[in-house]
Amino acid sequence: MSHTVDPVELTARLIRCPSVTPDEGGALALMEDLLSAGGFACTRVDRGGVANLYARWGNEGPVFGFNGHTDVVPVGDPADWTHGPFDADIEDGVLFGRGATDMKSAVAAFAAAAIGFVQERAPDGSIVLALTGDEEGPSLDGTRALLDWMGEKGERLDVCLVGEPTCPDRMGEMIKIGRRGSMNVRLTATGQQGHSAYPKRARNPVPALARLVDRLATATIDTGTAHFDPSTLAVTTFDTGNTATNVIPATCHAGLNIRFNDLHSGDTLTEWLRKEAEAVTDETGIDIALDVRVSGEAFLTPPGRLSNLVARAVEAELGVTPELSTTGGTSDARFIKEHCPVVEFGLVGRTMHAVDERVEIDQIRQLTAVYHRILRDYFA
Amino acid sequence: MSHTVDPVELTARLIRCPSVTPDEGGALALMEDLLSAGGFACTRVDRGGVANLYARWGNEGPVFGFNGHTDVVPVGDPADWTHGPFDADIEDGVLFGRGATDMKSAVAAFAAAAIGFVQERAPDGSIVLALTGDEEGPSLDGTRALLDWMGEKGERLDVCLVGEPTCPDRMGEMIKIGRRGSMNVRLTATGQQGHSAYPKRARNPVPALARLVDRLATATIDTGTAHFDPSTLAVTTFDTGNTATNVIPATCHAGLNIRFNDLHSGDTLTEWLRKEAEAVTDETGIDIALDVRVSGEAFLTPPGRLSNLVARAVEAELGVTPELSTTGGTSDARFIKEHCPVVEFGLVGRTMHAVDERVEIDQIRQLTAVYHRILRDYFA
Ligand SMILES: [Zn+2]
Ligand SMILES: [Zn+2]
Repeated sequence: MSHTVDPVELTARLIRCPSVTPDEGGALALMEDLLSAGGFACTRVDRGGVANLYARWGNEGPVFGFNGHTDVVPVGDPADWTHGPFDADIEDGVLFGRGATDMKSAVAAFAAAAIGFVQERAPDGSIVLALTGDEEGPSLDGTRALLDWMGEKGERLDVCLVGEPTCPDRMGEMIKIGRRGSMNVRLTATGQQGHSAYPKRARNPVPALARLVDRLATATIDTGTAHFDPSTLAVTTFDTGNTATNVIPATCHAGLNIRFNDLHSGDTLTEWLRKEAEAVTDETGIDIALDVRVSGEAFLTPPGRLSNLVARAVEAELGVTPELSTTGGTSDARFIKEHCPVVEFGLVGRTMHAVDERVEIDQIRQLTAVYHRILRDYFA
Repeated sequence: MSHTVDPVELTARLIRCPSVTPDEGGALALMEDLLSAGGFACTRVDRGGVANLYARWGNEGPVFGFNGHTDVVPVGDPADWTHGPFDADIEDGVLFGRGATDMKSAVAAFAAAAIGFVQERAPDGSIVLALTGDEEGPSLDGTRALLDWMGEKGERLDVCLVGEPTCPDRMGEMIKIGRRGSMNVRLTATGQQGHSAYPKRARNPVPALARLVDRLATATIDTGTAHFDPSTLAVTTFDTGNTATNVIPATCHAGLNIRFNDLHSGDTLTEWLRKEAEAVTDETGIDIALDVRVSGEAFLTPPGRLSNLVARAVEAELGVTPELSTTGGTSDARFIKEHCPVVEFGLVGRTMHAVDERVEIDQIRQLTAVYHRILRDYFA
């Protein structure tokens, strides 16, 4: 019995599941039915209210893994959409709906590719689909839960491909081989309250924190590395909340977001920030405390066997030579890189998280073809 | 028929009027009754929901004016007070209540002094009490309304004494002969929103405004003048309100309060601020707009006849040589200085606007004696 899966139809069915994080919305249940029917052994690995699905075909090595998420970000006001965000309308060859690019199409594409591939030829090895319902949320009980469970069960991947949208404008133009690290820092400056008419009797934290923020924002953290852009620092906010014009406030806060390359870690950057803050404290007498949250360290899967495999498949199917890039925000690849070599390849991400998120249905078929060829070449 | 007025008893009666701005609370009605009985021609000069009282004894010049307010600031939580804020309790020679120092005592003292003085000897000249119910509020329809009305009616003062509390710690130690100017400035920096991961694609207003704020806060505006302290600038707030760590905000705001001496005006300082903002705009490409509110220009009644008159009375009654000062916040003297020479002398201001505001009843009597001697010497 043949289980041909049409990736466009599957994408549409997934879009109709309202799986806004952390709701499973029927999306993983649908995948479980489909993959089970296709010969994959399925295990739900739910944790902390989040649904996850581990699906494996085969018992031998090597193991090729796909990773993706079926959860989506909220739709905002549905009235702003020209098509219902969970209707999966197709108009002029374009499929509309939340998750159309990020990333129900890719989940459908690699599921269709994998089910089709194991039916054509039973490969010498295994294929794993590790699917999570929490990539857009806190990401605490999603792919991390799957990796924890795999560790306990002795399940391991040799390589992993994450299907996040990676192409800025044109299909096939970019593979991600790493990501910059990311950290958020809350700076709190504390002085001493006083009356505006007598600034010398108070110790005003605002100009001190302003000085630090100006210095940090204009610092050159580095000039980039072989595979990474220069690290960046963005001051995201500066708040005091003092509405009394005759009062000098006692405290104020600023927020930083730092995206850093492989020259740094969360720890080395925290040390740098601490020294800069201490210099301002020495100059002004204002204490400045740091609260640091590292959401992901920088990582790189150096160009080589895995990236070559994906790049050759893209070239063969799409006639485009993809750039190997480390740009962009974080993804679950930051967890998988602790486990095995990981790269990311998917659709054009332009409408992700936006109103009228949409995908050309031809591109879903192209992506399926690329994933299919990757499997064929990997197991050749 | 004699109208001896006891200033302590009158203060207590005024405190029992809950005249929190803009409520008249019965305070000006009480003053009108009392001054009418004392031979003063009284006119209510109400405007914009604010009650004001103009009381004049005599028809000839010269005209000596007293100015004061019967409104008070809110009491906060009455449970924080050890005595009811409108009870006017006396304990160990201390009278408690909102307005005890700012400035129902002074209103009572100069009313008692003036009524007593015109009964002792009918002076060759006139005495005016210009009382307002809006000094603590917006001050738009208080003393300004009285001065507007006086202009229309051809009423004018030759000199004016404002009874605000002027002494920092000890009775008699300070006369105010001017005040620094005060202005509030709201700075709005506008850039272009973007994603934290790509700071170069956005134009972040926060570091630009931070740079301006740091420069302004560390600038030396001047080093003071003969009768004034150096001008000061306090950064009172800096706000963005961006809670998304992955977003670079489009706008942010800062607040400044500048207290300035007679080297400057609101206009010259606005020009300076504009140049400093433009320099930062040139460096950063971030627009910075200024919204300036000048609450009062700097003014000075140069030491001379009026300040000598008050200083000699203080020395004679209290044995203290007062300093002629221009420190402190604004008062209605900033309006009166456009009309005639004005100085301020009153109580120790330590508990003004605070919980358990209070005054030693001996000091009310001392203040009455000083005001009485000022009248005697002025009309001698
Ligand atoms: Zn995604
Ligand atoms: Zn006052």
